[in-house]
Amino acid sequence: MTKAEEMGEWKIIETIISKLDKMPDMPIPFGDDVSAIEIDNERLAVVKTDMLVGKTDVPRGMNLWQASRKAVVMNISDLASKGVKPTAILVSIGLPKNTMKKDIESIGLGLNAGAREYGAYVIGGDTNETTDLIISCMVIGIGFKDKIITRSGSCPGDILAVTGNFGKSSAGLKILLDKLEAPSDITEKLLESVFMPQARLKEGLALAESRAVTASIDSSDGLAVSLHQLKTMSHVGFKLTKIPIASEAEEYANIHGINPDEFALYGGEEYELVITINPKLLKRAQEEVTKAGGKLIMIGKAIEEEKIVCMRDGKEEEIQFRGWEHFKTID
Amino acid sequence: MTKAEEMGEWKIIETIISKLDKMPDMPIPFGDDVSAIEIDNERLAVVKTDMLVGKTDVPRGMNLWQASRKAVVMNISDLASKGVKPTAILVSIGLPKNTMKKDIESIGLGLNAGAREYGAYVIGGDTNETTDLIISCMVIGIGFKDKIITRSGSCPGDILAVTGNFGKSSAGLKILLDKLEAPSDITEKLLESVFMPQARLKEGLALAESRAVTASIDSSDGLAVSLHQLKTMSHVGFKLTKIPIASEAEEYANIHGINPDEFALYGGEEYELVITINPKLLKRAQEEVTKAGGKLIMIGKAIEEEKIVCMRDGKEEEIQFRGWEHFKTID
Repeated sequence: MTKAEEMGEWKIIETIISKLDKMPDMPIPFGDDVSAIEIDNERLAVVKTDMLVGKTDVPRGMNLWQASRKAVVMNISDLASKGVKPTAILVSIGLPKNTMKKDIESIGLGLNAGAREYGAYVIGGDTNETTDLIISCMVIGIGFKDKIITRSGSCPGDILAVTGNFGKSSAGLKILLDKLEAPSDITEKLLESVFMPQARLKEGLALAESRAVTASIDSSDGLAVSLHQLKTMSHVGFKLTKIPIASEAEEYANIHGINPDEFALYGGEEYELVITINPKLLKRAQEEVTKAGGKLIMIGKAIEEEKIVCMRDGKEEEIQFRGWEHFKTID
Repeated sequence: MTKAEEMGEWKIIETIISKLDKMPDMPIPFGDDVSAIEIDNERLAVVKTDMLVGKTDVPRGMNLWQASRKAVVMNISDLASKGVKPTAILVSIGLPKNTMKKDIESIGLGLNAGAREYGAYVIGGDTNETTDLIISCMVIGIGFKDKIITRSGSCPGDILAVTGNFGKSSAGLKILLDKLEAPSDITEKLLESVFMPQARLKEGLALAESRAVTASIDSSDGLAVSLHQLKTMSHVGFKLTKIPIASEAEEYANIHGINPDEFALYGGEEYELVITINPKLLKRAQEEVTKAGGKLIMIGKAIEEEKIVCMRDGKEEEIQFRGWEHFKTID
């Protein structure tokens, strides 16, 4: 009989969904970054839950304040990818019984910091006794139906873009977990990416406002997985002209003789937005994002054929469907 | 330095809340059964999260389908106590990696059953690898501001009532945990109460409709704790004329020479509503609840003096502030 560790997270989710009655007229389908219920003809209450588990999500060196802040930020990132402003956070906390009072205070402060950075508030929750540290956040925001960007609207010809370069978190995790060192200025940038992840909220809101974006996803499972998920939901393929890698991650990879693609494509725990843009409205999207203080990096385009490739020396290289998945080990 | 196990759940929650910025004009304050954000002048999005942990919330003998159903029902109970219909459920699941596929299927089916019994749907979620089984549900419903019943509206003179008798779950847990047996017909009823808890949704909706209820709480931490929480939030006391104990729980207590109050007052894991009613509108409240297929049991009244007592042989007996609390052992 199959076990969870053989199934992996996506197969487990698929199995659970197969046992559920589907809500009629579900405003956002299973498989997107968020869920929603209808409020009225124009608005949705948009919700997302994601659980942070000490053992798998908190690397050695990350303190409880940072972990608690991250538990909030990783939920806000999903709303950001849909262009929805987060209003409030609920949090269910599981604590080992020997947790110290000062650690509980750090958790409160970290949750609050994560919420307030993005204009939201923690408004309720629950605590429980557990073996692992568990911080399960739920974020809610009100979104306008005609502005929410799902994963399913990409069309062949759309421009593929991201809100930042990739690889810093994976490289930072390599420093923490495998003790592969780097010069201090690089180390600092890479660890900052792990300890203080940023949700691309201002970019997501600007992109929703531009109405130029046809699909969007947050990249928390890695760029490669995100592209494959967009492909599945939008029924398109992608041809990349470049791999968006952060210079510090590339430098770190070179120092240690690691293929930089491993960091940029197959990592995870990064919160950039991966989007497709109607080419006619590209300028508007760029203007809105720049005005909001962000940037867009063009990395290729959506194609009809359902494959994901990167052009290198005139040849197509396949981008694999692998990255961060709970229950399975990262390569 | 103080630890979680010395602080107990309520002190931990208080510590976390003390570190949070408070949302301005929070529609429902910290310390109530649910939280909410404003949708418009008339409506609130009402949300609640509560985590089920295998080790503390799933007694031996309860299967995964029942545990998953309970994880949903215990959240719906909180909305029921406010008179708000649940629309949808999100669920964050933590599974040990050796969980079998058939167990994952049972979880999906149990979650669906819990939601559908009350007209709601599971619309999203997340899975993670954990040591304990963790099922953290979040429920959302849309409520009308002028109908939502908080914990804070009781006035001296209000009638105190409950939607059912107490003690079956505590007695059932005694059978499961301490192996203290009982005749089979009683055992069946007591275990049913543990394995298949019911949220008093139809009663809560009927009571909200009646507009006769001044305060309401769900009794998941026990009747005594619920009364003390109503007292704190409403600044009243309570004088009980009877302890509402289920006949099966009383019989079981008598067989084993246990004080039945222990089951009825100081247990927990029961989902009755504890409410106060404007005496002028009592008839209307009773009619609405009866029409919905439920019942109201009058057990005393709210008084000015902030104490909680039960009248016995003409004498006042104090009802203590103790019951189910995470991180602390049940007596």
